[in-house]
Amino acid sequence: MTYEDRMDLVRAAKGDVCADIVFQNCDLFNPFDCTWERTRFGVTDGVVIGTGPYIGRQAIDLHGRKVVPGLIDAHVHIESSLLCPEEYTKLVSAHGTTTVIADPHEIANVCGTAGILSMCKVVQGLPVDIFFMLPSCVPASQADMGGAKLTAKDLQGLREAPGVIGLGEVMNVPGVLGGDLDLWKKLSLFRIIDGHAPGLRGMALNAYLVAGPGSDHECTTPEEAAEKLKAGMYLFIREGSTERNIHSLISLVTPHNVSRCSFATDDRHADTLFSEGHIDDCVRRSAEYGLEPELALRMATLSAAERFGLTDRGALAPGRLADFCVLEEGTEFRVHQTYKDGELVTGTRRSKVQSMTSAIKCEVPAEESITLEGAGTAHIIGLVPDEIITRHLRISLDAREVPDLQEDLLKVVVCNRYRKQRPAVGLVQGFGMKTGAIASSVSHDSHHIIATGTSDEDIRRAIGAVIRAGGALTSISGEEIHLLPLEYAGLMSVHPYEKVVEQLAAINAHTMRMGCIASPFMYLQFLGLSVIPSLRITDRGLYDVESSTRISVFE
Amino acid sequence: MTYEDRMDLVRAAKGDVCADIVFQNCDLFNPFDCTWERTRFGVTDGVVIGTGPYIGRQAIDLHGRKVVPGLIDAHVHIESSLLCPEEYTKLVSAHGTTTVIADPHEIANVCGTAGILSMCKVVQGLPVDIFFMLPSCVPASQADMGGAKLTAKDLQGLREAPGVIGLGEVMNVPGVLGGDLDLWKKLSLFRIIDGHAPGLRGMALNAYLVAGPGSDHECTTPEEAAEKLKAGMYLFIREGSTERNIHSLISLVTPHNVSRCSFATDDRHADTLFSEGHIDDCVRRSAEYGLEPELALRMATLSAAERFGLTDRGALAPGRLADFCVLEEGTEFRVHQTYKDGELVTGTRRSKVQSMTSAIKCEVPAEESITLEGAGTAHIIGLVPDEIITRHLRISLDAREVPDLQEDLLKVVVCNRYRKQRPAVGLVQGFGMKTGAIASSVSHDSHHIIATGTSDEDIRRAIGAVIRAGGALTSISGEEIHLLPLEYAGLMSVHPYEKVVEQLAAINAHTMRMGCIASPFMYLQFLGLSVIPSLRITDRGLYDVESSTRISVFE
Repeated sequence: MTYEDRMDLVRAAKGDVCADIVFQNCDLFNPFDCTWERTRFGVTDGVVIGTGPYIGRQAIDLHGRKVVPGLIDAHVHIESSLLCPEEYTKLVSAHGTTTVIADPHEIANVCGTAGILSMCKVVQGLPVDIFFMLPSCVPASQADMGGAKLTAKDLQGLREAPGVIGLGEVMNVPGVLGGDLDLWKKLSLFRIIDGHAPGLRGMALNAYLVAGPGSDHECTTPEEAAEKLKAGMYLFIREGSTERNIHSLISLVTPHNVSRCSFATDDRHADTLFSEGHIDDCVRRSAEYGLEPELALRMATLSAAERFGLTDRGALAPGRLADFCVLEEGTEFRVHQTYKDGELVTGTRRSKVQSMTSAIKCEVPAEESITLEGAGTAHIIGLVPDEIITRHLRISLDAREVPDLQEDLLKVVVCNRYRKQRPAVGLVQGFGMKTGAIASSVSHDSHHIIATGTSDEDIRRAIGAVIRAGGALTSISGEEIHLLPLEYAGLMSVHPYEKVVEQLAAINAHTMRMGCIASPFMYLQFLGLSVIPSLRITDRGLYDVESSTRISVFE
Repeated sequence: MTYEDRMDLVRAAKGDVCADIVFQNCDLFNPFDCTWERTRFGVTDGVVIGTGPYIGRQAIDLHGRKVVPGLIDAHVHIESSLLCPEEYTKLVSAHGTTTVIADPHEIANVCGTAGILSMCKVVQGLPVDIFFMLPSCVPASQADMGGAKLTAKDLQGLREAPGVIGLGEVMNVPGVLGGDLDLWKKLSLFRIIDGHAPGLRGMALNAYLVAGPGSDHECTTPEEAAEKLKAGMYLFIREGSTERNIHSLISLVTPHNVSRCSFATDDRHADTLFSEGHIDDCVRRSAEYGLEPELALRMATLSAAERFGLTDRGALAPGRLADFCVLEEGTEFRVHQTYKDGELVTGTRRSKVQSMTSAIKCEVPAEESITLEGAGTAHIIGLVPDEIITRHLRISLDAREVPDLQEDLLKVVVCNRYRKQRPAVGLVQGFGMKTGAIASSVSHDSHHIIATGTSDEDIRRAIGAVIRAGGALTSISGEEIHLLPLEYAGLMSVHPYEKVVEQLAAINAHTMRMGCIASPFMYLQFLGLSVIPSLRITDRGLYDVESSTRISVFE
């Protein structure tokens, strides 16, 4: 902001000239001391000039409604919503969100530096400010290369990209503790570093903290969260679509530590955002579980801003952005309107969505390339209900028996997205599918195409549909085909969120009819993640995480 | 810290190698959640590696004593202690202080950039880390030039000086609100800006905040402090030698806002530091006034560190400096031992104190140069007990009646320190002095030589003693002379603090015998401060602050 622009604010704040807008007759939440005040406040050039007897060229009567600073998500992968940033921000801004701290980890795995820069560009001018923590671990492991490998040098080149404020979740705990040189160079590049250390405790946790990560969003038990908080980590309590930690952790939050606690959604899909909400949902749930609502609001606003050094937001105070939400009447926290930079967010759509495509280079696998032969003890991936970990099953069988719908044994196929290569074929138990197939170009973290189904033919059809769409989720059974195209890097849809939600609902309903367990794509999309126990499948075949070795289906 | 140094810490934190030292059997205060824990913690290379079952090459048993992170002073002028940084840090480190945020405003007024750089150099290697906020307002006003004028360009040149972290108290509120261009350039140079806005409220306060200052240590009433806190300012509750605000303000501090509150001493003299203490004294007083001790400790440690972005301290957590104090047994907060970077601070003195001299260029005034002539209504500076504001008195008299000990009317003389110039002479009421004279080369903010006394002869003798010493405080009556030389820029003594405290005590006892009110130097040294109402005297004569005009003694 120039001197002249700032002086305009000073003159307005002094009352020498009219404010642009005065919001009057509201009950304003102040996160600095967690109190409410019936007041009015002035806004000029999108910035709060303060509370007081201001006169505005425009006056907006808020009819005594509650007003809270714009909500902040401390850690999210926008790609996981399946929405492009335009549609993501449209949806979350309706829920009161005005700032998100995003880790473009998924698009980085697919498109590398170009993917990150694409996101940095696309988010300009949206009604939610999106800051970026640069992905620290691309690829997630050597066992599962995607479309890119980001070195410290690459990240150094991205430090000055618009919106970049730090280093994203450092998942490679062994690399940190073992002194991986390139990873340590990454750590030395940034002042603000987010951690990612599920279950890490005691001396190993201490060692991890000495290396620099300052936050964690992976706690699942109060004991773990309390230890991390006491060791100086900022605690992001996560409530995603599948990983939901508020229930377990929220009782930890007290007035004494609330400045160190925030909310994060990490991975929250379009349908959850649509039906349940975003950070507003976190506030509601926290209050349901007994947290003083003012503490939940402190977490959702000032605490997150402070953690990231964003002194221009987090509160409606002089000199800070006029980002806020007006609540519906009633006792529950429901957002009626959202203002960004002093302007009502109306949900108007841009004429053209910006995105980037990512060529999918594999072909539909030939029939014989996914044939499985052999007999004896087979290594089988066993799904674990409500978890992304898997079990490593050993079952005696003959390949010709697959699919075995009785035993819920299906084939799972992974096609390398980035080059022509023989598909990997494995076996999985637990999908419950009785007919058809499903496939996805979202497959953590390398985002190869992954499919499972009740016949080779349906698996091949599903993969073909994904390839032809340039990336998609699809469910196929007989003549019925549902497809959610993911035009943006094969990860995100460029269509209106309502349409995406509708398509997801259609796919989910279809997979239910196909006999599938709930959220089959959630399980499918994590089968390739080679850093989570126990047995995984990558584009090169089965991978045993415990022993860090590739294995074949039959012993 | 290099990669190899960091990896040493990681290995020690993992427990792969011994820690340097393990502090065991202590009751450790954790400011992240304001709790205590009976534990042990390891230290390697001066850095905390964490709590846990560590084994050290050295083990120190703390016998169950309480341990708290090193105390932090959020805003102080070291010069006001009258001690050089070596002696200042020796004294305050014995009281548990390990970090101070200093504003070298006084030496900047005397020696400009060279004075600031001298302080930056002198503080290297001391047992207290001293960070600097660059003085924003030198001189304090156009009415009272000292030895330097610091422009935005000067400050820009100092930004990278060792220990510089921000812009010091922005006292020039009219300059901020009026758009003073050079002052605004200074504001644009720094991210962390301390405010100074006594009594500023309402829309003027809002306007000031829009310009950038983020903290205040000048609140005197709870209403003012609450308003500033709610408007987003960090609140530094000040407890100096004379300005003491804990009593009025401490009840404001709650668990909900404690992360935004810290302690500052601003101006605390050697004798107060010696007899009452430093930040430890603030903690004790706060507890006496009813504050939960854990909140006082949060203020004195993590809250101050967070305000200044000092993520390497403020708590004894992995990766942070091993700065801490071990408390004496008993319920009161008394520091038994202080550790800095894991080493016990022993109070050993350096062989040679570093300092810089500042030539005092004035001569002892000739007898006739301080003669006052005239009669009629005289403008007289009236002291206000316990305040640095003055009253503007108008009394009918004849100059030949001065000194009028009956009416407590004395002459006050100011000699420009930086060039030969006719002394300024005025009249002051309220010192109570019955014999002799006092003089000082500390005289806010320009630090000319200022003296008052019961005869011209004694005034000239006192000024002469100060000049000969190259700067000093002195009290003179008959044959009795007490002098505290201030060799470092005429502001600070280079002698051991015990000696300074002794000399101050001798001077104070002497002035008491001379009939003076308590703390006569405090009043004398602020008579020249041309930004505080009402009537002042600078090197060019009487100055009426309300009308910003110079006036003569007689109408």
